[in-house]
Amino acid sequence: MTEDRQPKVTLDPLSRELIRLALREDLAGYGDVTSAWTVSADRRASGRIVAREDLIFSGAPLAAAVLAEVDPDAGFRLLVEEGSPLERGQTAVTLEGSARSLLSAERTMLNLLTHLSGVATQTKRFAEAVAGTGALVVDTRKTTAGLRLWEKRAVRHGGGGNHRFGLFDQVLIKDNHLVAAGGVAAAVGRAREQAPFGMRIEVEVEDEPGLREALAAGADIVMLDNMGPEELAVCVRIARAARPEVLLEASGGVTLETVRAIAESGVDVVSTSALTAGAPPVDLALDFD
Amino acid sequence: MTEDRQPKVTLDPLSRELIRLALREDLAGYGDVTSAWTVSADRRASGRIVAREDLIFSGAPLAAAVLAEVDPDAGFRLLVEEGSPLERGQTAVTLEGSARSLLSAERTMLNLLTHLSGVATQTKRFAEAVAGTGALVVDTRKTTAGLRLWEKRAVRHGGGGNHRFGLFDQVLIKDNHLVAAGGVAAAVGRAREQAPFGMRIEVEVEDEPGLREALAAGADIVMLDNMGPEELAVCVRIARAARPEVLLEASGGVTLETVRAIAESGVDVVSTSALTAGAPPVDLALDFD
Amino acid sequence: MTEDRQPKVTLDPLSRELIRLALREDLAGYGDVTSAWTVSADRRASGRIVAREDLIFSGAPLAAAVLAEVDPDAGFRLLVEEGSPLERGQTAVTLEGSARSLLSAERTMLNLLTHLSGVATQTKRFAEAVAGTGALVVDTRKTTAGLRLWEKRAVRHGGGGNHRFGLFDQVLIKDNHLVAAGGVAAAVGRAREQAPFGMRIEVEVEDEPGLREALAAGADIVMLDNMGPEELAVCVRIARAARPEVLLEASGGVTLETVRAIAESGVDVVSTSALTAGAPPVDLALDFD
Amino acid sequence: MTEDRQPKVTLDPLSRELIRLALREDLAGYGDVTSAWTVSADRRASGRIVAREDLIFSGAPLAAAVLAEVDPDAGFRLLVEEGSPLERGQTAVTLEGSARSLLSAERTMLNLLTHLSGVATQTKRFAEAVAGTGALVVDTRKTTAGLRLWEKRAVRHGGGGNHRFGLFDQVLIKDNHLVAAGGVAAAVGRAREQAPFGMRIEVEVEDEPGLREALAAGADIVMLDNMGPEELAVCVRIARAARPEVLLEASGGVTLETVRAIAESGVDVVSTSALTAGAPPVDLALDFD
Amino acid sequence: MTEDRQPKVTLDPLSRELIRLALREDLAGYGDVTSAWTVSADRRASGRIVAREDLIFSGAPLAAAVLAEVDPDAGFRLLVEEGSPLERGQTAVTLEGSARSLLSAERTMLNLLTHLSGVATQTKRFAEAVAGTGALVVDTRKTTAGLRLWEKRAVRHGGGGNHRFGLFDQVLIKDNHLVAAGGVAAAVGRAREQAPFGMRIEVEVEDEPGLREALAAGADIVMLDNMGPEELAVCVRIARAARPEVLLEASGGVTLETVRAIAESGVDVVSTSALTAGAPPVDLALDFD
Amino acid sequence: MTEDRQPKVTLDPLSRELIRLALREDLAGYGDVTSAWTVSADRRASGRIVAREDLIFSGAPLAAAVLAEVDPDAGFRLLVEEGSPLERGQTAVTLEGSARSLLSAERTMLNLLTHLSGVATQTKRFAEAVAGTGALVVDTRKTTAGLRLWEKRAVRHGGGGNHRFGLFDQVLIKDNHLVAAGGVAAAVGRAREQAPFGMRIEVEVEDEPGLREALAAGADIVMLDNMGPEELAVCVRIARAARPEVLLEASGGVTLETVRAIAESGVDVVSTSALTAGAPPVDLALDFD
Repeated sequence: MTEDRQPKVTLDPLSRELIRLALREDLAGYGDVTSAWTVSADRRASGRIVAREDLIFSGAPLAAAVLAEVDPDAGFRLLVEEGSPLERGQTAVTLEGSARSLLSAERTMLNLLTHLSGVATQTKRFAEAVAGTGALVVDTRKTTAGLRLWEKRAVRHGGGGNHRFGLFDQVLIKDNHLVAAGGVAAAVGRAREQAPFGMRIEVEVEDEPGLREALAAGADIVMLDNMGPEELAVCVRIARAARPEVLLEASGGVTLETVRAIAESGVDVVSTSALTAGAPPVDLALDFD
Repeated sequence: MTEDRQPKVTLDPLSRELIRLALREDLAGYGDVTSAWTVSADRRASGRIVAREDLIFSGAPLAAAVLAEVDPDAGFRLLVEEGSPLERGQTAVTLEGSARSLLSAERTMLNLLTHLSGVATQTKRFAEAVAGTGALVVDTRKTTAGLRLWEKRAVRHGGGGNHRFGLFDQVLIKDNHLVAAGGVAAAVGRAREQAPFGMRIEVEVEDEPGLREALAAGADIVMLDNMGPEELAVCVRIARAARPEVLLEASGGVTLETVRAIAESGVDVVSTSALTAGAPPVDLALDFD
Repeated sequence: MTEDRQPKVTLDPLSRELIRLALREDLAGYGDVTSAWTVSADRRASGRIVAREDLIFSGAPLAAAVLAEVDPDAGFRLLVEEGSPLERGQTAVTLEGSARSLLSAERTMLNLLTHLSGVATQTKRFAEAVAGTGALVVDTRKTTAGLRLWEKRAVRHGGGGNHRFGLFDQVLIKDNHLVAAGGVAAAVGRAREQAPFGMRIEVEVEDEPGLREALAAGADIVMLDNMGPEELAVCVRIARAARPEVLLEASGGVTLETVRAIAESGVDVVSTSALTAGAPPVDLALDFD
Repeated sequence: MTEDRQPKVTLDPLSRELIRLALREDLAGYGDVTSAWTVSADRRASGRIVAREDLIFSGAPLAAAVLAEVDPDAGFRLLVEEGSPLERGQTAVTLEGSARSLLSAERTMLNLLTHLSGVATQTKRFAEAVAGTGALVVDTRKTTAGLRLWEKRAVRHGGGGNHRFGLFDQVLIKDNHLVAAGGVAAAVGRAREQAPFGMRIEVEVEDEPGLREALAAGADIVMLDNMGPEELAVCVRIARAARPEVLLEASGGVTLETVRAIAESGVDVVSTSALTAGAPPVDLALDFD
Repeated sequence: MTEDRQPKVTLDPLSRELIRLALREDLAGYGDVTSAWTVSADRRASGRIVAREDLIFSGAPLAAAVLAEVDPDAGFRLLVEEGSPLERGQTAVTLEGSARSLLSAERTMLNLLTHLSGVATQTKRFAEAVAGTGALVVDTRKTTAGLRLWEKRAVRHGGGGNHRFGLFDQVLIKDNHLVAAGGVAAAVGRAREQAPFGMRIEVEVEDEPGLREALAAGADIVMLDNMGPEELAVCVRIARAARPEVLLEASGGVTLETVRAIAESGVDVVSTSALTAGAPPVDLALDFD
Repeated sequence: MTEDRQPKVTLDPLSRELIRLALREDLAGYGDVTSAWTVSADRRASGRIVAREDLIFSGAPLAAAVLAEVDPDAGFRLLVEEGSPLERGQTAVTLEGSARSLLSAERTMLNLLTHLSGVATQTKRFAEAVAGTGALVVDTRKTTAGLRLWEKRAVRHGGGGNHRFGLFDQVLIKDNHLVAAGGVAAAVGRAREQAPFGMRIEVEVEDEPGLREALAAGADIVMLDNMGPEELAVCVRIARAARPEVLLEASGGVTLETVRAIAESGVDVVSTSALTAGAPPVDLALDFD
């Protein structure tokens, strides 16, 4: 266990603001009145964050930052590597500091950790389902307000990959854009003209003719939406023959049951919101010593 | 349908900041580059947010505020009352405005609505399970960072009740506080001395002796933690006999299967994190006209 | 004097923002130009904050945070306990650090300390006036913008108690709410239905019939507004007989002259804005060594 | 009464933040729960802010901005000119809007108006005391955190003048600066070298030798600190003879009783914290129609 | 001239904050004291922003937002299309509103417009210099704090293209990354594994062997740094032969004199900081009617 | 080299926000993805900021604060005094810390330093041009959004002086104010009445009659706008004869070629935007060891 595995609590400003929001809604007015009024200011405490079920652990820097925001002098020590599997009963983190601070930060830390580790654990199930197919399971933009960065990180901890961060870092042309622009060729052309020269352009298609149009229009990535495994396989063959460098993404109707068949169609990535929006929280608790 | 049912977009500052965070993570840099580069600035669009399954609808003012933040001139019209059940295929909201604005706001609005309506829908299941028992199902502090206000509101839309808002508006003395304070009598006494005179003091107990101590110490509310229905019933009888005005809360091990038996013990409220943290998102989509 | 009595400068976010506002209005542009241009950057200084009259001291953590915001390396050492009486000439705090930093922070620190200690000192006068009556003198919401938390804390330092923190943590139904809701029974009923189950509901009444209605409606607290000592005593008897657990508050016309007679009526609390809005600042100065 | 006398609610950012702080401390969590739960959302109300004693009215734009922050659609109509005297019973402002909004904003508006009108009213007493002497009574930096701008404005409404806004817009060299710089000549010289060429430099002196040094050093303004009327008169004669363009300020020991004698010494301005820190709030109330 | 050409003043949050900073540094304390004290509140004014030299106009929405921040009721009407050339004497914008508002906003608006139009005008010179070569001149990250978005937009108005927005939306591996990662193959491999699947990876190389390594490692874009036109041409031939889909960027030593020869080497883009950091402001003035 | 020359990174809030804006636009989403994905978290690095041309160095505290914002543990050591001349090849600053942190902060630091040192270097040229005339070259309000404080500081580093900080700290009456107020006498009178008593009042005039009016109206400073050296000299004589304490400023048409002749007219200050808006960035680079 080396020191450098300890999470840095210098977060990006957006995450710092989210933490402050989370604390503000729990600690308005006088804050944690129960602790303030029943626990003396100089009482120390220590405790451990323990897995109550098997899980993939994720979210440590955010939890550490919550504690640091409540009390910069409290100690947060990560005993495991994020992304590694924890067995039921295993300790992920030890905490040490003012008893008041640990009590005030407890719930906000756990709410974040149980959710993010839930995302990592859920992703692991999908990643294992497609193991060996050559396809990568990736997330979508169906994420929790303010937590996208952390959910995408948890997806990587679970063995998945990431789609674009947001609306800003990749072009993804869908139906409504095509209608507004007057067709695929026009839409791709207008985007190419204005995008930073290194940004890829993706087009969503519903069927084989749509795919052929997108390939002809010069799309860098094609999303094959809501197709069954066979139709996907046909589309993959067409695209590889026409423009081998184009990336292919399957999307829609992806569940733990269907994901392997979809991945075996030969696409590069399979995207699904089930990694994030549908991930049940795992059970983690803070046990005081 | 009267005008005054339209959601006001003047939110509390915390919610406004959360919306800005959610938009910032999706719209960094140039923002929605696809729409900016493929859809002309003066193109108008309209659409409807439609239920894709039966659900209880919640979260409209937050979604409306997302749209207003993206574009103050876009229109958001709520066609149903929050808290009312929607059938699959029913339209909840109609939208109208610049095509770019609707496309840029779409995902952030839907992410919030599918989650909050999921909370309301989940709560409805619990509320129906205890119907007629006289007990109220209430939420906990296991909520999503920045969304507590809205999740608690969704719980009410689903027919549940609320526990305290946060650490600040009610005293809730748990194990660790008792240890630190040196017992129930000391903890309740210290809290009473410092709390605003109108604030209630709750004590968490694990068994009958704990209950008796809490009653003797003058607790206003007692949380009966992790007890089975029979043990709960015994405790209820003891408490009602000793101090009839005391409120009784059951907590721990609450699922859709167990909640009715717990409620029938005679407690005033049953609290469970399953209303919020465990609520699966419902399916809502934005269909452009 | 133990270290742990030193104030922590990790304030709640609202107080941090207030401090920044106070410093921004004093230190816009280049900031403290006089110090910057006449005192060299490496000059050190030390000083003491001294009482120029007898007073109850309050506000140390806020003053410490002002100094820390101006210069995190400056030292602020509290020599007395907040809430304890200081005699004229007594030193409350010693300061040490860059001369520029102490000079720049001086006025903002003193403005806060003289006001908050003024509140504590004023409260002491009221608390002494009711000593032995069993009633508690409490504050109101007539506080200074951004300082409510600190003024309520100063009230406790002076031996008073607190009313609710704000509009958010207790229901207090007044005239206009009654009119809008259609009577006491309706108002209390609607509030009870929606309030967190542990939140108390208070009703303001003007006379005996109002009191009876409030008791019948199930109010948890009744505010007896603008009544003389005799009328109060009558109301107290009625209420104790009907519902002994109900809390009773007297309000209106409370001065240092009238407060004891009001308290002797048997109410639980007497509330008055004179603790905060009417409190004259005390005399505290920073003497450089 | 012309429209343009209505206060604009586009405040400077600092004042907007102060308003948000004031509202946040009153409206955390669900905000005004009493109004939310007892008054229906579509109920309208109107009312008037009425003087309960004779006073000078000040602070309207800030109060208007409070209301606008709570509800941009509520109406705030100023019936009098700020700085004009109001008689007991006179209406200063009429309000109209959602009943909930008016009730939620009421206390925060009144807290600001009673304080700022208190400052204006207090200043009026001082201004009248020096009428005809040629001296101007001005404020100091002993102001309320976040409200300096508004208190200085209220001082002008009361017929007083302003000292510098803060540490940033004028050089004021005091004892500690002199010690650090090594004397008056050095201090003034160093400040002159670095200050914007149009900024005046003031020096505080305790006696006649100090005054002579300050004049010799080229001070633009001299503050005569803690001198009696005769000593002041001597100093005024010395200064007028030596450098007639120099401005002279008397400071220290200024009360309603002493201010006229001080002013009659011939100084240009008399400064006192009694205009702001010592100003008792006036009585203003919101009467609903 | 259609209405929809009027700039929308709903900016991204970062730009709104920049505007507030710019106004805060100009309008601290009482703000524009000269206008407040010499111009009556109800005086109206109108004016026009006029080119004092030939230029390409850019920055209108930012200037409009400055005015709207100062006064939401002031009018800003854009008479030309951004990116279009203005001749000396031509009016770009007409303004109308409170005289105080226009005077207070004038300098901040002009500072932004003269700079951003300077960037567009400078870019036009470079774009014209490479006309017909097939290469695009693009910007770099050498931009003004807080204005990157607007400078990159001005570059497009001048006929240039954009490089990545920041460090976040494209991988660009330079010397120091290579050393740290242990070579090109390792660096590209590690980045590919973690990047969103659609993000391109660029490698900076200094010479032909570097180019060959980058191509072998699978780089999507190669930056050819500090090469002369001939060396560039050789590299272009090598790259096109090996992997025709790879994008090629020339960088370093780019001036108005050298840019055409560099562009004629056959690279896809030529990047230079001269479009932004080196752009002289153009002359634009606000003439009041 | 003493420790106290190391820049303090406790900046004023406005500068801190500017730094955050600058970092946010470069480090949105996952931030510096290249460094995150190719450089291991525990790799250390050191480097030096080196002058690539002769220059006057300025901006160190801002650059240090950028690095501290990215990583509070990174080291920034200033080897030279700001305002001192650096020769080509000379090291101004050494850096040490996590390799990722230095790489992420590099561009934002350099963008600020090359600009601010550019301002100082440009000012030096003007200051040398007027050496010996007794006039001071000062800046204007034509500055970069958010950087005014730092540019004015750089001007002082280059040997220039400062005009007012903004619209808030000095009255400067121009044409439009005169028209609105109804003449010089009225404008000066109204300003005098409302300004803090120590604030100077400046009037801009275009010709000799204007000057005479301004002198008669009691202006403290007169700006002689757009006059040639002879006309200036005439005006200086008139003013010195009438009111010797009045400060005189020349403005308009000031270039490196004309500035000396203008200064020799006898004015106190010559103001020009060429110090800031027109300053070309200097060449500074970060060399890793």
